[in-house]
Amino acid sequence: MHTHILLIDCPDEKGLIYKITGILYNNNLNILSNGEFVEKRTNHFFMRSEIAGEFDYQEIKDELEAALPASAHIRIAPRSKKKLVILATKEHHCLSDLLIRYYYKELNAEVQAVISNYDVLADLAGKFNVPFHYISHENCSREDHEQKLKEVIDTYEPDFLVLAKYMRILTPSFISRYKNRVVNIHHSFLPAFIGANPYVQAYERGVKIIGATAHFVTENLDEGPIIAQNVMPVAHSQSASEMAQAGRDIEKIVLAKSLKLVLDEKVMVYGNKTVIFD
Amino acid sequence: MHTHILLIDCPDEKGLIYKITGILYNNNLNILSNGEFVEKRTNHFFMRSEIAGEFDYQEIKDELEAALPASAHIRIAPRSKKKLVILATKEHHCLSDLLIRYYYKELNAEVQAVISNYDVLADLAGKFNVPFHYISHENCSREDHEQKLKEVIDTYEPDFLVLAKYMRILTPSFISRYKNRVVNIHHSFLPAFIGANPYVQAYERGVKIIGATAHFVTENLDEGPIIAQNVMPVAHSQSASEMAQAGRDIEKIVLAKSLKLVLDEKVMVYGNKTVIFD
Amino acid sequence: MHTHILLIDCPDEKGLIYKITGILYNNNLNILSNGEFVEKRTNHFFMRSEIAGEFDYQEIKDELEAALPASAHIRIAPRSKKKLVILATKEHHCLSDLLIRYYYKELNAEVQAVISNYDVLADLAGKFNVPFHYISHENCSREDHEQKLKEVIDTYEPDFLVLAKYMRILTPSFISRYKNRVVNIHHSFLPAFIGANPYVQAYERGVKIIGATAHFVTENLDEGPIIAQNVMPVAHSQSASEMAQAGRDIEKIVLAKSLKLVLDEKVMVYGNKTVIFD
Amino acid sequence: MHTHILLIDCPDEKGLIYKITGILYNNNLNILSNGEFVEKRTNHFFMRSEIAGEFDYQEIKDELEAALPASAHIRIAPRSKKKLVILATKEHHCLSDLLIRYYYKELNAEVQAVISNYDVLADLAGKFNVPFHYISHENCSREDHEQKLKEVIDTYEPDFLVLAKYMRILTPSFISRYKNRVVNIHHSFLPAFIGANPYVQAYERGVKIIGATAHFVTENLDEGPIIAQNVMPVAHSQSASEMAQAGRDIEKIVLAKSLKLVLDEKVMVYGNKTVIFD
Repeated sequence: MHTHILLIDCPDEKGLIYKITGILYNNNLNILSNGEFVEKRTNHFFMRSEIAGEFDYQEIKDELEAALPASAHIRIAPRSKKKLVILATKEHHCLSDLLIRYYYKELNAEVQAVISNYDVLADLAGKFNVPFHYISHENCSREDHEQKLKEVIDTYEPDFLVLAKYMRILTPSFISRYKNRVVNIHHSFLPAFIGANPYVQAYERGVKIIGATAHFVTENLDEGPIIAQNVMPVAHSQSASEMAQAGRDIEKIVLAKSLKLVLDEKVMVYGNKTVIFD
Repeated sequence: MHTHILLIDCPDEKGLIYKITGILYNNNLNILSNGEFVEKRTNHFFMRSEIAGEFDYQEIKDELEAALPASAHIRIAPRSKKKLVILATKEHHCLSDLLIRYYYKELNAEVQAVISNYDVLADLAGKFNVPFHYISHENCSREDHEQKLKEVIDTYEPDFLVLAKYMRILTPSFISRYKNRVVNIHHSFLPAFIGANPYVQAYERGVKIIGATAHFVTENLDEGPIIAQNVMPVAHSQSASEMAQAGRDIEKIVLAKSLKLVLDEKVMVYGNKTVIFD
Repeated sequence: MHTHILLIDCPDEKGLIYKITGILYNNNLNILSNGEFVEKRTNHFFMRSEIAGEFDYQEIKDELEAALPASAHIRIAPRSKKKLVILATKEHHCLSDLLIRYYYKELNAEVQAVISNYDVLADLAGKFNVPFHYISHENCSREDHEQKLKEVIDTYEPDFLVLAKYMRILTPSFISRYKNRVVNIHHSFLPAFIGANPYVQAYERGVKIIGATAHFVTENLDEGPIIAQNVMPVAHSQSASEMAQAGRDIEKIVLAKSLKLVLDEKVMVYGNKTVIFD
Repeated sequence: MHTHILLIDCPDEKGLIYKITGILYNNNLNILSNGEFVEKRTNHFFMRSEIAGEFDYQEIKDELEAALPASAHIRIAPRSKKKLVILATKEHHCLSDLLIRYYYKELNAEVQAVISNYDVLADLAGKFNVPFHYISHENCSREDHEQKLKEVIDTYEPDFLVLAKYMRILTPSFISRYKNRVVNIHHSFLPAFIGANPYVQAYERGVKIIGATAHFVTENLDEGPIIAQNVMPVAHSQSASEMAQAGRDIEKIVLAKSLKLVLDEKVMVYGNKTVIFD
């Protein structure tokens, strides 16, 4: 069945659900699932509906705009397969997990390409017939390197970039081109252990639990809106590298979970936070 | 702020949310939070709204009945403190947890009384000024014992009975008087280890995780609709009694969590299952 | 560094650790890690040591046998890569996870072959250069089918068989050939939902948590010694097939975790239970 | 049965377990449980044994000192009930949990007294017949306040101080008197959200998991050796105060768990970390 996802956010006021569902009903559309949330501090309304039926896109949009506050964001689009470009460095575990899911059609997405600053993962991408671009950062300024990335990325016009253990910092200028469209997996339970070598930091601090965090990338390193997190227990007997090894299973599961939410358009970004309709 | 909870379930059809929210809007009521769910197999619709504003109860009910399918269940009532009678036996941990929460006004309920078939917990109830009824089951048929329980319970007219480690089986006849109003904590991760001595069963089976389950009690032992579950890891080095000791923390937390959901009217029972609006 | 694993179990008595570590010390061996456990009900002693140094295998064994109770089981062997044959049916997720780990040398094992009663996973095994044997069960008695399996398995002489979602029941006669050497992943939190379609059972029962269990296979279906378990929360909004989909991530992680323990010889079987030295 | 706990840590060398268990065996002592750990980076050895039998304390200690490296720490003492003084402020949940466990003899300790800088918890302590000392910090320098605390504490000579949501910072001078003897519960998953109002910080950051950390207090705020941690999921729909409310259940469980470990002498502090023999 062909369905659409309707996403709305606007200042809250009485009657919003009634007005929105009325427009859908009067256009003979059926609501398959519906979620609403009001952020109490700012009194802001969020709604996600999955709807079935035929309609004129512009007409519905006009009706919604007329009924809702002027500052409302309204997005209505067919539930569709999204296009992804994945950036990675040397570690395979997140990339291989995504490629396997893609290969077996468990990811609601087309993986268009893998880009890496090393060539060690070319072989893996090749097994699943995904184009691999090796763009070394050596002998190259950060700006030049990102310019090369952009050129390759632009040929694909992806909906989202996925940083599947891409271990280089991206400049604000690069990030700003893909606002709320870059998903990163950070190998710690943010905001603990921001920055480099989080497992070494976790080992040094003697924590009893480690974790991973998937988030949208913003201009501030490791500070973007969090989509999903998960954790696992560790013990004093584990070295930093054993923690890192164990943590990889959490990383790949958190990244896959966050992508499932993002690809199903169940994530709305609000300020530096996410509203998850799950 | 004085609010009401509206609970509706009925066969699904197009426009239900629109019709319901329209009635609320036209009566000048504000929706503070809203949840809907459609059970796909039976195409059954569930909705829970918390609403603010003044209204005529009978008028709203009439309007909703006129708008909804004839078989709809509609409940609208002020968000209020519920009345509880707690049944216990000898173990204190669930009872003491509830009494502490009650004493510090963290439970949206009045604990009217504790009833036990032993007298060992009288002292505990007394500390929190809760009436304690010792109703021994000795030298007494099951029917006679339940008759005595009923007589005491009836003097309180509680909204819910809580079985806080009450270790006797209740007859279908007793249970039928309090349909979907008796909450039990079972000391296993149901449906594993139904029946007596679940920790001994768990130990014998060599499981690596144990759990607890809060559920409404029905005529079939340990088979009622599940409200909440939680688990914890165990190891080969733990004896059955060490598992039982560790499990008590899970039991009390699961029971408290399920009561919070029940008292906030976030649980709707459907067949042998629950819909949780959380 | 080349090390050995020493595994001992015997009736407990005073001085066992002293006697065993004395033999190791007097042979100039170094203990890298050590674990002991006494099962209190039967007063049975378990010990696992990882040791470094050169020694004469027969001499150490003789000394240990002389020092320990006559019924002691003593196993001392080089820490080594184990040989695995994997059986699967149609689902890829556990197999692909193991093949990826194998390909990137994260599994302390050689995956010698994949055997399946369908041919759909041939392609996957091929990507990682692992021999694939398609042995259909159609038009073939259970005994004949298992005979064919045995013939192929025997050519590899594997240390362990891994049932990576192999969906056929194996006969006691087949299992008895590989005692404590067949690891299965069961898609439920055993002993809940023994048998077929556990996710459908879980959905019907309305549980709030689902899980997976890795265990050694014995002659009694789903009753063998449990190695590892894990769980995840589910909600009323998930269908049985959505639970199955979500559960796959738990299944593959539990299977990988249990194999890591088994391949590192950290699992000792005792009756129908396991002692885990982790 | 009367047993002793033996705790040893020293630089690792070949034969340590053999030498130690030999001394125990030759003194006719029985090892009930035993744990060892070698910290690989510094090559440091840790051992905890629970032993049964009669012995001359000084003799065993002399033998162990003669056998072990000169820098070894050796502690051997009867397994005994420890003495606790609890400091709290206004929140009841950790204190009430400990008092209930104490009252029902589930805590291997005597709770000698509760000290608070407010009087609101006097009533609670009174219910369980535990002396309550109200020592206000108002109109009083930090040094004078701590002087008053010390005077009361000294009358009890406790083994451990427990900060059960004691919301004032203690000076290094105060802490230094009770090195590795002050257990604190911090209401965040350290090192995330160090300092004040961690739930507000967590809410602002939009995390999807919150936690609690029990640790020994050192001179550096929230930086002491971690004993236990635990977490729970949260959602965008929870306000900071709802997170705080939910987090209390984690706080009290983590504190109780850490105390159980500490009171059973299963925790050894090494640098800024803990070795847990569980």
